[in-house]
Amino acid sequence: MNINNVLFVSPMYKELEAIVNRKEGVENKQFRFISEDKVSAEDYLWADVFVSFKRPGNFDFGNIKWVHSLGAGVDKLLRDAPWKDDVLLTRTISSFGQKISEYCLSYLLRDVQNHYTYDHQKQNKEWKMVAPIPLNEKKAVVFGTGVIGQEVARTLSFFGVKVYGISLSGTSKEYFTEVFLSNSDYHHVLQDTDYLINTMPLTEDTKLMIDEEVLHSCNDVLFINVGRGESVKNQALIHSLAKGHVKWAILDVFQEEPLPESDLFWTHPKVTVTPHISAITTAEEGIDCFLETFDKLEQNEVLLNKVDLAKGF
Amino acid sequence: MNINNVLFVSPMYKELEAIVNRKEGVENKQFRFISEDKVSAEDYLWADVFVSFKRPGNFDFGNIKWVHSLGAGVDKLLRDAPWKDDVLLTRTISSFGQKISEYCLSYLLRDVQNHYTYDHQKQNKEWKMVAPIPLNEKKAVVFGTGVIGQEVARTLSFFGVKVYGISLSGTSKEYFTEVFLSNSDYHHVLQDTDYLINTMPLTEDTKLMIDEEVLHSCNDVLFINVGRGESVKNQALIHSLAKGHVKWAILDVFQEEPLPESDLFWTHPKVTVTPHISAITTAEEGIDCFLETFDKLEQNEVLLNKVDLAKGF
Repeated sequence: MNINNVLFVSPMYKELEAIVNRKEGVENKQFRFISEDKVSAEDYLWADVFVSFKRPGNFDFGNIKWVHSLGAGVDKLLRDAPWKDDVLLTRTISSFGQKISEYCLSYLLRDVQNHYTYDHQKQNKEWKMVAPIPLNEKKAVVFGTGVIGQEVARTLSFFGVKVYGISLSGTSKEYFTEVFLSNSDYHHVLQDTDYLINTMPLTEDTKLMIDEEVLHSCNDVLFINVGRGESVKNQALIHSLAKGHVKWAILDVFQEEPLPESDLFWTHPKVTVTPHISAITTAEEGIDCFLETFDKLEQNEVLLNKVDLAKGF
Repeated sequence: MNINNVLFVSPMYKELEAIVNRKEGVENKQFRFISEDKVSAEDYLWADVFVSFKRPGNFDFGNIKWVHSLGAGVDKLLRDAPWKDDVLLTRTISSFGQKISEYCLSYLLRDVQNHYTYDHQKQNKEWKMVAPIPLNEKKAVVFGTGVIGQEVARTLSFFGVKVYGISLSGTSKEYFTEVFLSNSDYHHVLQDTDYLINTMPLTEDTKLMIDEEVLHSCNDVLFINVGRGESVKNQALIHSLAKGHVKWAILDVFQEEPLPESDLFWTHPKVTVTPHISAITTAEEGIDCFLETFDKLEQNEVLLNKVDLAKGF
């Protein structure tokens, strides 16, 4: 693959340019750094490779042979229009697993350590013991057993949490007590689970997978969504919060982002909203991954971050 | 040692009785379960072994040959009056390390994951990314490298936190990058530490050890006290909070417990107060440890939980 012209399109294009200029081994390549509202058809014709978080409105494959996603998820690059079969798609793989694990664990620990209770008691100068429950008495079900789901399972296992997985393949994976096929009857395992964590990418298969059937099988569960908002049926979640199937929802991803001001989640007393930060790719990480992938392409090495277009991740 | 008569003294004496009655192998022993305000001189004369969290006001060694502490700390049994040299003192060792680690980690993660910021932004329907900082960019200093300090270090190391220890012996320990002698000049290591965690028992050596010299060497540190309140000079802590040496204090232990209503910590905006719950011994754990120790004594086995009266732990 003969690649010289690199087109970066992002609202943070200036920051990206500053970082690329600090890197070694990029002297013989041509770069353009442009914001989404300025990028033109001529840029797409000029570019060999397109680097971005998402597909701009006026996107055109032009002469582009390769697209690199600065984020881990590629649904925003694949959606809206068909993909061109001979265009390579790669994505950024960095320390997402650890980041998302720390995000999830922070809310599990907030729960068992009764942070809200103690903050409230302090306001009333109330000295009243409410014993924390050790995590080794807890059980979690993780949707998605890929790199991120596995790292979440590894982290929870360190504390003795019993972790079950739900995946499209049902293949056994380390750190999971058992992995169930997503289209099997796994709902019994939800009945006494304490934590339900979604780490799945968005594909046709995972769209709205977390529905009434899943949520209503739970009892008093803490639900965490670090996958994609579109995998969850919001009405079912709201209903489950009202009925006590879900005791609290920690949502980092939403069907529409930024979350519209009118959305119920903003004001729901049992919902925590975070603005899609559980696995922020720093510009540095996205660029490092892009440059490493570039090297591997030039050396004809195997790409571990190539997206399987049939699977969508 | 000929032991038959076991005296339990605790406000939760009924719960203790119910648990002991469920245990096997206790049939040939005599038990009394009494509250602190009812225990009498006659009880102390009757008892071979005294089991409690603390020394009651009217405590008398009577015929007592062995005292078992239902908690990990024995300062409340040793203080107020001299110990009788030939009386064995043992303490409960259970999963304190894991409990305290989860307590500490919950507040480290609350910090790096910006829980308060996001709770606040939700109230204002504000969608604004504040990137969490991964724990592997953080550095901690742990006072005390015993069983509890080591378990804290092991847990933080799992996430890549760089952990330094301060101890009376300065002996190297696993999971610590380096351990400094408490009477050496280790203060340079405090300058860029993110977390300062006290896990030390209370002894003459550790009393008020965390003073101006220690706290003023820190910059913007999160301080967690899960050891004993008496190891910290409160005025130095309040001053350090005002000056920014300490950005937030998480206090589970205090010089006086329950924390008096007039105490400044209750109303300090940068202090979290919890009622000595980071390592609650459940009654079950305290009794299990007591019965195991009893067995070992009868079999003449080595006791791992025997308190060294000279050291005080």
